[in-house]
Amino acid sequence: MQRSPSLTSSVTPFPETAPAGLADLAGGISSVALTELALARAETGEGPRVFTRLFRKTARAEAHASDALRAAGLARSPLEGLPISVKDLLDVAGYTTRAGSRVLDGAPPASASAEAVQRLRHAGAVIIGSTNMTEFAFSGLGINPHYGTPRNPWQRDADGGGRIPGGSSSGAAISITEGMAVAALGSDTGGSVRIPAALCGLVGFKPTARRVPLQGTVPLSPTLDSLGPLATSVSTCIAMDAVLSGEPHTGLRPATVRGLRFLVPDNVVLDGMDDTVRASWTRALDRLAQAGVQLVHQRVAPLDELPGINAKGGFSPPEAWTWHRRFLPARQAEYDPRVLVRIQAGRDVTAADYIELLARRQRWIEDMGALLSGFDALVMPTVPVVAPKIADLERSDTAYFAANGLILRNPAIINVLDGCAISLPCHAPGEAPVGFSLAAAGGQDSHLLSLALAVEPLLRG
Amino acid sequence: MQRSPSLTSSVTPFPETAPAGLADLAGGISSVALTELALARAETGEGPRVFTRLFRKTARAEAHASDALRAAGLARSPLEGLPISVKDLLDVAGYTTRAGSRVLDGAPPASASAEAVQRLRHAGAVIIGSTNMTEFAFSGLGINPHYGTPRNPWQRDADGGGRIPGGSSSGAAISITEGMAVAALGSDTGGSVRIPAALCGLVGFKPTARRVPLQGTVPLSPTLDSLGPLATSVSTCIAMDAVLSGEPHTGLRPATVRGLRFLVPDNVVLDGMDDTVRASWTRALDRLAQAGVQLVHQRVAPLDELPGINAKGGFSPPEAWTWHRRFLPARQAEYDPRVLVRIQAGRDVTAADYIELLARRQRWIEDMGALLSGFDALVMPTVPVVAPKIADLERSDTAYFAANGLILRNPAIINVLDGCAISLPCHAPGEAPVGFSLAAAGGQDSHLLSLALAVEPLLRG
Repeated sequence: MQRSPSLTSSVTPFPETAPAGLADLAGGISSVALTELALARAETGEGPRVFTRLFRKTARAEAHASDALRAAGLARSPLEGLPISVKDLLDVAGYTTRAGSRVLDGAPPASASAEAVQRLRHAGAVIIGSTNMTEFAFSGLGINPHYGTPRNPWQRDADGGGRIPGGSSSGAAISITEGMAVAALGSDTGGSVRIPAALCGLVGFKPTARRVPLQGTVPLSPTLDSLGPLATSVSTCIAMDAVLSGEPHTGLRPATVRGLRFLVPDNVVLDGMDDTVRASWTRALDRLAQAGVQLVHQRVAPLDELPGINAKGGFSPPEAWTWHRRFLPARQAEYDPRVLVRIQAGRDVTAADYIELLARRQRWIEDMGALLSGFDALVMPTVPVVAPKIADLERSDTAYFAANGLILRNPAIINVLDGCAISLPCHAPGEAPVGFSLAAAGGQDSHLLSLALAVEPLLRG
Repeated sequence: MQRSPSLTSSVTPFPETAPAGLADLAGGISSVALTELALARAETGEGPRVFTRLFRKTARAEAHASDALRAAGLARSPLEGLPISVKDLLDVAGYTTRAGSRVLDGAPPASASAEAVQRLRHAGAVIIGSTNMTEFAFSGLGINPHYGTPRNPWQRDADGGGRIPGGSSSGAAISITEGMAVAALGSDTGGSVRIPAALCGLVGFKPTARRVPLQGTVPLSPTLDSLGPLATSVSTCIAMDAVLSGEPHTGLRPATVRGLRFLVPDNVVLDGMDDTVRASWTRALDRLAQAGVQLVHQRVAPLDELPGINAKGGFSPPEAWTWHRRFLPARQAEYDPRVLVRIQAGRDVTAADYIELLARRQRWIEDMGALLSGFDALVMPTVPVVAPKIADLERSDTAYFAANGLILRNPAIINVLDGCAISLPCHAPGEAPVGFSLAAAGGQDSHLLSLALAVEPLLRG
């Protein structure tokens, strides 16, 4: 297997706690060897909590085929032969999709893979397994009472039980930090790709929703759902996005940093920030300013309107209820009670409130679009706090929902915007992982990725 | 004023009951003269029930300006100088839009005209007045208890009170049959352009909704609402549509009739047809067959699904309720009780039912699209019965709602389809007006209009 610079430039963020990422090993070794390594790792440690299912047989077949093609000079994409994990809400042909739940156990197997999974396979990826997640993706914390909660690599063994990975794409993140996959495909309805990326020291990209087809996925909120990659570097996310979206990002280069204009809201997004995040955030802004980025700190008035717009719960409860009511109330005992209560909140939402929500969102997008047009990106801490301890949140509903609201608050802004965003690590080795988000209006994905390529090295370490 | 062949080829369908259409007079006379004639006619006869407001001052100014421009060779479009009426749900700058109701009487005047009205004005139309309608457009009959019901030109004085004009664009149709306008701008959510066209012997075109902006209109159902013209000929509708949509229909010519394939559903759309309509319908099909059109009679299975899809009332009640709940219940005494009950039906629709309706409609559109792709058009009687008597429907809620359901049934299919459709007269002079509908999938407007141009002369007289 040839060394692929775009996939091997990244470092595993936690060499002290996690095995070296597969990407670092890719030079010179075969896809078969990489795949066996990934599968072996997936059997131990966090593995059983990272994957709800491993595709041992098909992964091995894909790895063999990939090595044969590569030997003939027929690499299909930069993803050729690399083990990649897919979130358990994406259909994989021949298997029942479970979405981190037990409710779907009796459902028939998928007759076709999700379009996004097919695109990865056709581009040469080795689909290693389905990753664990918050049940039905309905929380940003990543705690799962059915399949266990994969632990954050940071302070994994402190205080017995460790810290949350973030969610809902929890297994996606940990599959990468544990070297069980080079990249992961997650979904992001209110931050579910960016939150675990931020809390685990990875890069997470939420594309403009319409760019990657949702066909073949279990929905949370079809209005807000998007599919995006997690990886250890921006360049790997770009390679993933090119395959997932079918847009090759031809000629994408790092933007010129000097002269960029970033909007830094001083309302809403900094509320409740802890000291650790504040230190990394401030250092990151200093470095950007030193590199010549113009940081415009100002109140972004539309952000203050969001609680009003979402006063009746927003899109996810009624849209989730629409899908889940076929199972409820008959099977409600099988749901995580903390997920169930959020789904049930959608039962009594009226059509009029929903229609008004659609209209208010549209006006809000227009207001934000006008405001953002003068900037290259809006920046904010992805999550204003470091990863909480799993035990603290499992113990208390109050703590769980308070943490969930705080952790989803910033990334969810970009889902309501129908925009795109990327979370980049901005902590030093050994520090708690902190994510720095760059965001832009819908459709600005290529520009955002070129900014991320440029900014990534300034924020690291 | 030069004679414009595209606007003068049509005949007024009821010379025995209505004054000659203005279009017939257009050759050689000035816009000022045409406008004065239209205004004078609007003051008498059906006029006070046709218009909720006349724009005497601005219409005269527009007519003067138009004559000056035309004299200098600067005609802006085929609509230059022609009196055109606009339905009372379209904003006209400086006036309060009333939508056939008294509920909006205290609302502030519109600060800008609806985009569609602006386009007509910029193309040289003389906006003669706002036309009466079913209150808030929420019925297909055209009965209005607040401003009166303009009478159908057919059997106007029979049985005291005459027959319904059809609706909701009731005044739009009668403004043309009475020679108070050359063309009319109406709205069509479930047939409100095509029904009055059919029942009054006119041409009515419902474009694909997205082609004509709704900005500046009082909504009924934003999902289904569309804006389209009524006129005495297809060519006038084409001239109107070109201005309204901003698409010039360059090179639009009558299609070649021989070899066209029309789908004729033998389920749903023929149910409840009366003998008069059946006679005209059968004669129309015979003429098409003789001219070489291939008529494919078959069951169209998706049509049988529509009652199930709309079992909870469809889009209009919840979408109307969303808009009207600001006025209700405080002002419900001011509503037409038969409109009120339909709006109130939207109050208890849940978000989940609405979301499911959106999804089922989407699948239905795909099913119908696949089916229609083998045909040039789907054809059906626009309305399966001749215009009922006003008094019969005013007298009985049962008769009113039965007639409303029957009359809306066929045209509403095309709104759910997000398609386009045109109703053409297919009766002989002196016979009761009957409409023949050609319909196609969304975006096929140009092709449909070219079919209509070709078919129109075969169906007349």
